[in-house]
Amino acid sequence: MTDDWFTEPGSSGFEHRYKVRAIPFKKETAFQRIEIVDTLEFGRMLVLNGAVQTSEKDEFIYHEMIVHVPLLSHTKPRRILIIGGGDGGALRRVLEHPVEDIVLVELDEEVVKACRKFLPSINGDAFLDKRVKIIFDDGAKFVGNSREKFDVLIVDSTDPIGPAKALFTEGFYRAAHNILSKNGICVTQSGSPTFQMEELRKVYNGLKQVFPTVRVYLAFVPTYPGVLWSFTIASKKWDPAAVPPEKVKERLISSNISTRYYTPEIHTACFILPKFIQGILEEDTFFETAL
Amino acid sequence: MTDDWFTEPGSSGFEHRYKVRAIPFKKETAFQRIEIVDTLEFGRMLVLNGAVQTSEKDEFIYHEMIVHVPLLSHTKPRRILIIGGGDGGALRRVLEHPVEDIVLVELDEEVVKACRKFLPSINGDAFLDKRVKIIFDDGAKFVGNSREKFDVLIVDSTDPIGPAKALFTEGFYRAAHNILSKNGICVTQSGSPTFQMEELRKVYNGLKQVFPTVRVYLAFVPTYPGVLWSFTIASKKWDPAAVPPEKVKERLISSNISTRYYTPEIHTACFILPKFIQGILEEDTFFETAL
Repeated sequence: MTDDWFTEPGSSGFEHRYKVRAIPFKKETAFQRIEIVDTLEFGRMLVLNGAVQTSEKDEFIYHEMIVHVPLLSHTKPRRILIIGGGDGGALRRVLEHPVEDIVLVELDEEVVKACRKFLPSINGDAFLDKRVKIIFDDGAKFVGNSREKFDVLIVDSTDPIGPAKALFTEGFYRAAHNILSKNGICVTQSGSPTFQMEELRKVYNGLKQVFPTVRVYLAFVPTYPGVLWSFTIASKKWDPAAVPPEKVKERLISSNISTRYYTPEIHTACFILPKFIQGILEEDTFFETAL
Repeated sequence: MTDDWFTEPGSSGFEHRYKVRAIPFKKETAFQRIEIVDTLEFGRMLVLNGAVQTSEKDEFIYHEMIVHVPLLSHTKPRRILIIGGGDGGALRRVLEHPVEDIVLVELDEEVVKACRKFLPSINGDAFLDKRVKIIFDDGAKFVGNSREKFDVLIVDSTDPIGPAKALFTEGFYRAAHNILSKNGICVTQSGSPTFQMEELRKVYNGLKQVFPTVRVYLAFVPTYPGVLWSFTIASKKWDPAAVPPEKVKERLISSNISTRYYTPEIHTACFILPKFIQGILEEDTFFETAL
């Protein structure tokens, strides 16, 4: 990274580049390299090991979509577990719902420290809320060992290279199933359908081994390479793609939740996949070479 | 452009970069700089004045969406006018429908020559089809002067800087209304909602001055800056967003059209806009600063 432009590769032949104003924070922790980068186009960003995690200007898209879709697919989400999510953006959206307890398990305490200091516009007062318990630990280990039950599990992790690798295995999905209550729902970010097809297919097929209902949904996140981004949601009971928009609307109004990307209609539309992405999930190798 | 990486800015602070294998063709014409660029990630590209127009790997997304959405929103499209589209990708998709005549008006003959020579995978035999008439002329002038009538008008142009400027004016939209038959439909690419909000808003509001029904729909085009891309469709009679998926399915089957992005369900879902994009259309300035 230079002081001038920050470059993030999407693949060996494609990159996003951001004009940089300043880099107010940089630290090598036991787990990763943390950077806070001020960019001209997207404001302040959290960058881990060279990969953009979130930015002030577009964080609302990713965080609304990783939180509101699962929470509004569950009729009464009371106890929520977030794995990762050290920037606090998902936590803040979960707190907009009438939940009782939230446990956030973040590997790297330094990420939370940096985000509380440099990105308060993303986490607000979320870390101070009395319903929130923060644990600094390995998320896969926590899920494997915990005897608590949660209604919704949100895996808001980095990509499956490096520290987050264990969160993208069938073993983790079995533990996730275990930790969820009777009608529980689990969601995970599952990468770029353009540049990480294999990862998306693995997440989808891994979750299908364990949960009766698994769906992929999409959002566009301008600061992620490829922009189109996938989430995979797994449910013990309800089909997240079949929630009636009127129900979503009622819940948003009764909880007084305002959004900037998510709407009741987006909840339905985000599950409609372009044909070549259906093909990726069905392991159609034609599509793999096609894009 | 270096021989190594090709850079396209999305804004002054954000760029897409493509690893380049070779640049087999380069020409300054009377209208613009044409380049054919071979990239590692997206195959061969057509680049006009430094802006990627289409690539071998992702052309199917843009071309399916700019053709199938309007043609399947019209119950009997027989006469089609394409403005721009010199690469032949839209033309090829139009020819998959049972149409009778297609007129393609391209400003720059050199674009068609280059694309026929270097991008046959995009245009196939489209330029040889007997139903097709190619005219090299200014599209706005052609539409203003023609006394023919068309069922569907497809504006497959560059962005509204430089030669395509006249295609993004209310005067052009009035001429487009004139040239369309009784139940006619017009579609135009309308830029990136991330980086060209003002353009999208102008297209939408300009078409609303002239047509009773105007809708914006979205697709993701990996090689366009911002990736999320908007199209604006204007209709004299039918609402393109209200076409039942079963009808679309019937037509695709009866015409034996196979697609890789577009589906009957995508036809419906592509009109569902994230809330901040609804805000752009309603001239909500909060959203303009928000992303």
